[in-house]
Amino acid sequence: MQAGGKPRIGVIGTGAIGGFYGVMLARAGYDVHFLLRSEFAAVAEAGLRVDSAVHGALTLQPAQAYRSAADMPPCDWLLVGAKTTSNADLAPAIIQAAADGAKVLLLQNGLDVEEELRPLLPDSLHLLGGLCLICVNRLGPGVIAHQALGAINIGYHSGPGTDQAARMAIVEEGAGLFRAAGLDSQAMPDLGQARWQKLVWNVPYNGLSVLLGASTTPLMADDHSRGLIQALMAEVVRGAQACGHEIAPGYAEYLFTMTGKMPDYWPSMYHDYSQRRPLELEAIYARPLARARAAGCELPKIEALYQALAFIDRRKH
Amino acid sequence: MQAGGKPRIGVIGTGAIGGFYGVMLARAGYDVHFLLRSEFAAVAEAGLRVDSAVHGALTLQPAQAYRSAADMPPCDWLLVGAKTTSNADLAPAIIQAAADGAKVLLLQNGLDVEEELRPLLPDSLHLLGGLCLICVNRLGPGVIAHQALGAINIGYHSGPGTDQAARMAIVEEGAGLFRAAGLDSQAMPDLGQARWQKLVWNVPYNGLSVLLGASTTPLMADDHSRGLIQALMAEVVRGAQACGHEIAPGYAEYLFTMTGKMPDYWPSMYHDYSQRRPLELEAIYARPLARARAAGCELPKIEALYQALAFIDRRKH
Repeated sequence: MQAGGKPRIGVIGTGAIGGFYGVMLARAGYDVHFLLRSEFAAVAEAGLRVDSAVHGALTLQPAQAYRSAADMPPCDWLLVGAKTTSNADLAPAIIQAAADGAKVLLLQNGLDVEEELRPLLPDSLHLLGGLCLICVNRLGPGVIAHQALGAINIGYHSGPGTDQAARMAIVEEGAGLFRAAGLDSQAMPDLGQARWQKLVWNVPYNGLSVLLGASTTPLMADDHSRGLIQALMAEVVRGAQACGHEIAPGYAEYLFTMTGKMPDYWPSMYHDYSQRRPLELEAIYARPLARARAAGCELPKIEALYQALAFIDRRKH
Repeated sequence: MQAGGKPRIGVIGTGAIGGFYGVMLARAGYDVHFLLRSEFAAVAEAGLRVDSAVHGALTLQPAQAYRSAADMPPCDWLLVGAKTTSNADLAPAIIQAAADGAKVLLLQNGLDVEEELRPLLPDSLHLLGGLCLICVNRLGPGVIAHQALGAINIGYHSGPGTDQAARMAIVEEGAGLFRAAGLDSQAMPDLGQARWQKLVWNVPYNGLSVLLGASTTPLMADDHSRGLIQALMAEVVRGAQACGHEIAPGYAEYLFTMTGKMPDYWPSMYHDYSQRRPLELEAIYARPLARARAAGCELPKIEALYQALAFIDRRKH
């Protein structure tokens, strides 16, 4: 805990997501520490910059940048912004940077992303998930473009918070951090619900951006892709229901309409694809399909999309 | 009818399919006449050539080539090898080249391709459909690569053949032409059956070649694309059944296995795509989906594939 009672925040994996939220929190007066690897030198020298269409040009200079988690002060909240494909590798850094009873918040999409990390963390750490509704991408070392939105929905996964009231108090504390930074943030009573809800967006737009080589504006301008997006969203809602997570009526329609009004956006999976990084197909497609199937629910269009993406992903390496 | 009682054959649309079958029939001793447009000069001068991995290098020189159907002698059989997207435009040429009571055989994939042409033809002409299981593509003006296969299944659509026996006699006559040219040919009692059966191949391989930018060998080498192909095939079989056409048990599996053993092949839709021609989405996807839906049968993976292809097709123009 830093002076003044404000929690100290560490960002593990300072990409577009971790960088954006870290900069916003630092500007709100929080003591934020950034762990970097390849971009350490650039950020240590020039700090972090967010070119935001909403908030203007934001600079954090100097940024408290670290090459090794061993050098970081103990952090009360750790924001993990790395890809789901590398969660297991991050456990040692998270443990080194964590204060006693720290809260580890995975800012990642997809289902069950906490499952891989949990067994590698001590029981004393709280593990939470945060679903970010945001259009943001990395422009270069330490430089992030923020196009729109920024809301973050948080749910509790596991840890010392044994009853629901204690867990919700921690989730509310997390949501309070982001609200203090001027961002919309909801405490979600059910992390699974929050994750399925976010999949309503990720399943259609991430996959189709790769499969069709198209950003949101052309995808929202054609009747056939609009129909496909809506059908995929409807399957996510059905899958969520089958798994016991009711998605609010009208929520898919809300995301669909909102996306039509957003500035043109290339989802993160497209950037992963074009930069030849592995696609997050396990978290966003394979696990939801497996969960739904275990609940007796087939999601054929999502499965077809997943099979096509898996072919593409394997072929490009 | 030419001397010796052999029917005279006209080829309308001398692309890869029309060219291949026309050359094979001419080499079997039939009097074959070829209507060409942009390739007329090249074929009139150099004839037609089929580079066949099965039959060797076949040359037809001179080829009886015509720039206008008005110049063709009356033909007893007309083979139409053009794209389904241009059937209506071909009616005047077909009528000009047709002998009394001629048989018009559409060598085209997809469903209901005869429907557009039928009202434009006189009642005295027989209309038939032929489904070609063949790996063939155009290399240049009058030059065709034949990689494998060549079987053709023929069914009667409409015309003066009023009872089933009369229709089947005509279909058998057509199959006999191709058999005389050394090709496997089946007379199908039900053209709809034949068309659905061929869709078991066309629906997965044509569409996925465009969507995934992949020919048959890589598509058959990856577990995910194999699973997707099999799922699409199973949906075609279900759609056929819903429409009253039983596909023989094991037929999809046979096509799947056969494709894995074929030389690497780019389906015709990929060539259409790469040469920026319209894709045959109506005949191969939209009509089967509409027919199945009218019979109360949803084919969600085919629909997703169709929606993705329609986006791609519209976008490239």
